[in-house]
Order: sequence, then structure tokens, then C-alpha cells
Amino acid sequence: MLISDKMYELGSKRSVIRDLFEYGKMRVQEVGAENVYDFSLGNPTVPAPNCVNETIIELIKELDSISLHGYTSAQGDLQTRQAIANYLNDTYMTNFKADNFYITVGAAASLSIVLRALMVSPEDEVIAIAPFFPEYSVFVTSAGAKFKMVPPDTKEFQICFEELEKIINVNTKAIIINSPNNPSGAVYSEDTIVKLSNLLKKKSKEIGHDIFIISDEPYREIVYDGVCVPYITKYYDNTIVCYSYSKSLSLPGERIGFVLVPDEVVESKRLYAAVAGAGRALGYVCAPSMFQKVIVKCIGQTGDINIYKKNRDILYDGLTQLGYECFKPSGAFYMFVKALEESDEAFCNKAKEEDLLLVPATGFGCPGYVRISYCVDEEMIKRSFAAFKRLKEKYSS
Amino acid sequence: MLISDKMYELGSKRSVIRDLFEYGKMRVQEVGAENVYDFSLGNPTVPAPNCVNETIIELIKELDSISLHGYTSAQGDLQTRQAIANYLNDTYMTNFKADNFYITVGAAASLSIVLRALMVSPEDEVIAIAPFFPEYSVFVTSAGAKFKMVPPDTKEFQICFEELEKIINVNTKAIIINSPNNPSGAVYSEDTIVKLSNLLKKKSKEIGHDIFIISDEPYREIVYDGVCVPYITKYYDNTIVCYSYSKSLSLPGERIGFVLVPDEVVESKRLYAAVAGAGRALGYVCAPSMFQKVIVKCIGQTGDINIYKKNRDILYDGLTQLGYECFKPSGAFYMFVKALEESDEAFCNKAKEEDLLLVPATGFGCPGYVRISYCVDEEMIKRSFAAFKRLKEKYSS
Repeated sequence: MLISDKMYELGSKRSVIRDLFEYGKMRVQEVGAENVYDFSLGNPTVPAPNCVNETIIELIKELDSISLHGYTSAQGDLQTRQAIANYLNDTYMTNFKADNFYITVGAAASLSIVLRALMVSPEDEVIAIAPFFPEYSVFVTSAGAKFKMVPPDTKEFQICFEELEKIINVNTKAIIINSPNNPSGAVYSEDTIVKLSNLLKKKSKEIGHDIFIISDEPYREIVYDGVCVPYITKYYDNTIVCYSYSKSLSLPGERIGFVLVPDEVVESKRLYAAVAGAGRALGYVCAPSMFQKVIVKCIGQTGDINIYKKNRDILYDGLTQLGYECFKPSGAFYMFVKALEESDEAFCNKAKEEDLLLVPATGFGCPGYVRISYCVDEEMIKRSFAAFKRLKEKYSS
Repeated sequence: MLISDKMYELGSKRSVIRDLFEYGKMRVQEVGAENVYDFSLGNPTVPAPNCVNETIIELIKELDSISLHGYTSAQGDLQTRQAIANYLNDTYMTNFKADNFYITVGAAASLSIVLRALMVSPEDEVIAIAPFFPEYSVFVTSAGAKFKMVPPDTKEFQICFEELEKIINVNTKAIIINSPNNPSGAVYSEDTIVKLSNLLKKKSKEIGHDIFIISDEPYREIVYDGVCVPYITKYYDNTIVCYSYSKSLSLPGERIGFVLVPDEVVESKRLYAAVAGAGRALGYVCAPSMFQKVIVKCIGQTGDINIYKKNRDILYDGLTQLGYECFKPSGAFYMFVKALEESDEAFCNKAKEEDLLLVPATGFGCPGYVRISYCVDEEMIKRSFAAFKRLKEKYSS
């Protein structure tokens, strides 16, 4: 065999979401943009805060070419790492230092790097809580570990602790959590985090080694109604944070984020070195230098989150009035809605007949639901209700 | 074991080059910048062509935030891929299409991705020609293959074909070539490429499967005296090109490059899909979006290469006059010089006593030589000759 089958499979199987998006573009050609309701993609639609482009122009004026576009150290510019530490310490009353941070090419890179730094044996297991971002299973298995899933709590979209407890065993290396959550929009409460922390402490003792939390939190700042997103490192020592500025600064194409390894993590220095080693092994040389400098100036700012909040409210109210069972999201820009028949895939196909492009949640580990991205044009949401009405009526007759 | 030993090793062992660079910074504090001659790093010192920053400012004015900073497709913007195809076709009389290109976060990413797309079994072997960029062995072993080395041709720094022929066997998957070469500065002649191509065709038949050339060519445009750098795909069908704009556009920190899989490669479509799959598996979502757009406008331009040429001439003439045996480089920005004793490491330590920071070439697979980076300040080169003279005299007495 000349070429890796595994890599071929990964590269040739288009995701359901990407397929829907391409289908939507085709339908726009056929029936016009105003008649297609594409809720498939999670692409931020709020512009980056002005600070981003203003800083880029300033940097171009102020810095010589080598300082602006040259290599940074592999772990990232000291100034950038210090700015992130300061910001988090001020915001969450933590005690991070610049050397706890490793700057990356976005959250997917952060996760890939951390998983590879942790994986020792093909027996190692990493757990995700459904519903989860489907690429987790790709990153975990590519790092050489086994992917395990805790079934969803479809009532509150927190964590089914009974199920989690059953799944943990001596091979459990880490658990990935994602709050605010893609795809449910749920935010884990402080109560959930405390319970999780206690369970993992207990189980770590039982199995005889530490279990890591990998907290994937690109949506940390995208929350509504003043909901609080607890900073996980304050509740559980063995927490590694994977962050991206894709959503907070609306810069998903620029690929900039970080890995945070707090001092409290077991073998912290050793793990940090392994993170650097994994970055090297995967071909990550440094994170984009100009955007590292943009972060220093723009950290703490966000795009206008009220736009997402307004969309959420319009969508939630409209669908609820039509009789759909919706989970009201406190964060991110996705809404989880119960399918009107057992198969979410069949339901999404019926929706497609009305040019409503919804993502079936089976791929997120949560059959019977659909994900509706509301990082879309407000007017499209409003126009879509007639189609949602027709879809509902299909099930009433 | 909680953390990967292998990744820890990779992350904690600092490279000789990085160590020298840090030592140099310390010595600058102690004896002043004018008394330290740091030839260790390969960091481009020529500014990016004006086009780069001008294009960034234009893009900020012309494009909305989502178009400028949003996700691109994983394979890269069609416009970028088309611009690269057009440029190469015009320059080298090739017939590439946009769909032959997969845009990456630089050449290290390109190599990591390609190696992972190709590796099928732990018996797979990848060959590099000494002297070689030491990270090759990191990328090859991280992809799960065995790293093999062809000893150097220290006369012309082309390829020892007899040795190469001996090393190729049924497990040989690919051979990495790098011309213009880091660290020797040699450019492979057309004769070398033709011989290599013929040998690989013959050996492919003998072993019963195709052997790939992976052509790592970030220095393609950094050549002097009108030397020709043959485009490898025109000589050998199974060539995959890994390119980076780090050196040509002096943008090493911005991380932008590509993988080229020509139609002529065996199972070309399948390999391209595997490249996309490997990118996904490693956590590469897309290449930085703004710089993808910069490439469209600036492709074909370079920084002022005459600055490197002038440095090369001053360094070569100066060292030759002092009696050093130098290999005159036709490309890249490194010069290979014979150590004045058997051990290049011992020689570099003696040089260090004179605050001359040279890189021993044992790490490049070529003991007995040192690498001198001349992407440095011209005045530093001139000032360094007194120290080189003292170093020489240590060996005369």
C-alpha cells in the first residue's frame, strides 16, 4: 500500500456539515438566497472588534519587517504570553505566569498537541461528554488513544455523572469538556464543575493515577444573560486549557490560540516540555507572529456579542411559538432542538425539502436532536419561520 | 506513565543552534554587541518586499472582517491556489491546476502532513541526503517511519548515488531532497536531478513499488549568479513539493506555504485526499486567511536577495583569504566550511572562545564541517574576520 488508508478516509469523507453547506450554495443558485435557510455552519458572523485591524495598521507602521513577520520562539512571544497571563489573572483571580502558556495555531492545534503530549500507550482512553464536537474523536484517535463517549444529559445538557463514573477505568487518561458547548449551547454550572472535580479526584485515587481535564473553551466569552463560566483550573488542579481567539475576536481564519499548563498540574514542567515537543513533532514552528502581537493589544475585547444574543432570542421565541422543543442556550451560537421524529437524520432530510439546512445531532453523539447555528443573518432567521411552520405541519397531519 | 517520554525528550532537548543563539545573547550583555559574531540562526534578515505590508493595508480597506479573517476551506482559498498554479506554470512551463495545491502553515507543516499521508507501516523508510535539516528526522519518526541517511558528497555537496542505491530497499517509501540546501548552500544541478530520477525509476521497478521524492524547497528563489534550480516535477513523476514563503517573502513567523501533488503522481487524487486527511488529523484547520490573500498579490516577488549575495561574497572571500576551506554556496544563506580539526564540535568550541558562534555540522549528518549563516548584518561579517584570523592561528602554532 502506497498511501495511508486512514488519512485517505479522513480526507475524503466530507463532514455532514460541510455537505449541507455546499448543498446550500447550490440551492442559492437555483432558488435564490432569500429562499434558502442555511443554519449549518459555525462561522462567526460578527466582525472582529475594530482594535484588530487598527492594531495591524499600527504594527505595520511601528515595527520593522523582521520584528513583525519574523520567527517567534516556539512557545510564543514572551509579551503575548505575559499579556494573556495578566488578563486571565485580572479576570479570574488566578496566578498564571507567562511560562504556563504555549501559543498555538488555534484550538484544534492546541487539542492535537496536548493529546499527543499525554498519550503513552494505545490502551490510553480519552472521554468526551455528548453532545461533543465531532473532531474530538479524530484528534484522539490520531494521537493514538481510544475515544470514549458519555451519553448526553438531554434534560439540562450538563454531565451524566453516573454514566461518566461507569466509563472511567485504569486506562482513562483525560476527559475533554467544552463549555460553552458546541453543539448544545449549554454552559456547565459551577455545581457541575464541582461535581466533576470531586468525581475525578475520587476516581484518580481509585485507579492509582491522575486524570486530566482538557478544557476546550473557544466560546468562553460568547455567553448571554450574565451567565458565569467558571474557570476550571480553580476547581481541579489537573486541568489543561485549550483556547482559541477564533470566536472571541472573530478571527477563525487567522489561527491563533494557546495551551495553558498551570503549575498545579501534576508534573507541570514535564508536561509543558512535552507540549512543546508535540508541537515540534507535528510541524508547528510558531503561531502567526503578527497575530501574536495583535492579541497583546486586543485581549479582553470581543466582537458585538449582542448580535448573537438577539439572534438567539428571535430564534428561540419563534421556534417555541411554533411548538418546537428547544433548549435555550446560555452560550456559543448554537441551539439544540428536538427532532419531530425519532431519526434526526430523517427529520433533517424533511427540513431540507423546505430548504432549511439543519445539522442532525447523531454525529455529535446525541441522536434525536438537531443543531441550529444562529451565527447567521437576523433577517434569514425571520424569513425561515414560514419554512419551520411548514416543516412542523408535515408532522401534524 | 502520565506524560509521553518521547514528546518530553523532543521538547526539553534544546537544539545546538538555539543554545548557541541564547549564549550569543548572553555574551552581547557581557562584551557588547560589536564583539559577538553570531552566525548561528537561519532567520531571514532581508525585509519582506513592500508589497506585503501594502497588500495587508489594502485588504483591510477593501474586505469586510468575515472575508478577511474568516475560515477558508481546509485546502486553502481557490484564488490563492489558482495564483500559485498560474505563477509556477508561467515560470517553469508546468501544467498545474488549483486542485493540485493544499495550502499549509509553512514547510514544516507541509512535510509533517505529507509524511503522515504516506506512512502505512512502521517498516516504512524515508531517506534524507546529508547534510540535511535535522528536523527531518523528527518529522519522519513522528510520522511513524524510519529515518535513513545517505552520507554526504563533501566534494560538490550533490548526491552520493552509490550510497543512495545501497540504502534503497523494499521498505523505501520516499526520499527527501532539499535544494537549495540548508545547511550546505548547494543547489542540485540538472545532471544530479536526472541521475536521481533515473535511479529512482530503476529502483522502483526493482522493489515493485513507486518511490516518492519529497522536494522541500523553501530556498528555491534564494539563488545567486543566475544558477538554475530545476523544477523537480518535470523530471520525476512521483514528486511531491513542500514549499514555504518564509524565505522568499521573508515571512517566517507568519507560517504560510503549500503542498503540491501533481496529477502525474501515482494515485494522485487519493494522495491529495490523504494530505487533506493528515492536515485534519494533525489539527491544521486552514492556513492563515489574510496571508493566503497576501500571497495572491505578492507571489513571484522576493526580498532583496542581493543583500545575501553581497554577504556571501564578503564572507567567502574573507575566509578563503584567511586560508579556510569553504564551499561556495549557490543558494540559501548558509556557507559550509571545513573545521580545522577532526571534531567539528571541538572546533566550534574553540571558535566560541573568540565569540564566533558557528554551528557544528555533525547534527546535519556531516561531521568535520561547520555551518555559517550569513543572513546577518554585513558589518558583523567584516568585524568577524579578526576573530576568524585568531581562530586560524590557534591551529598554526
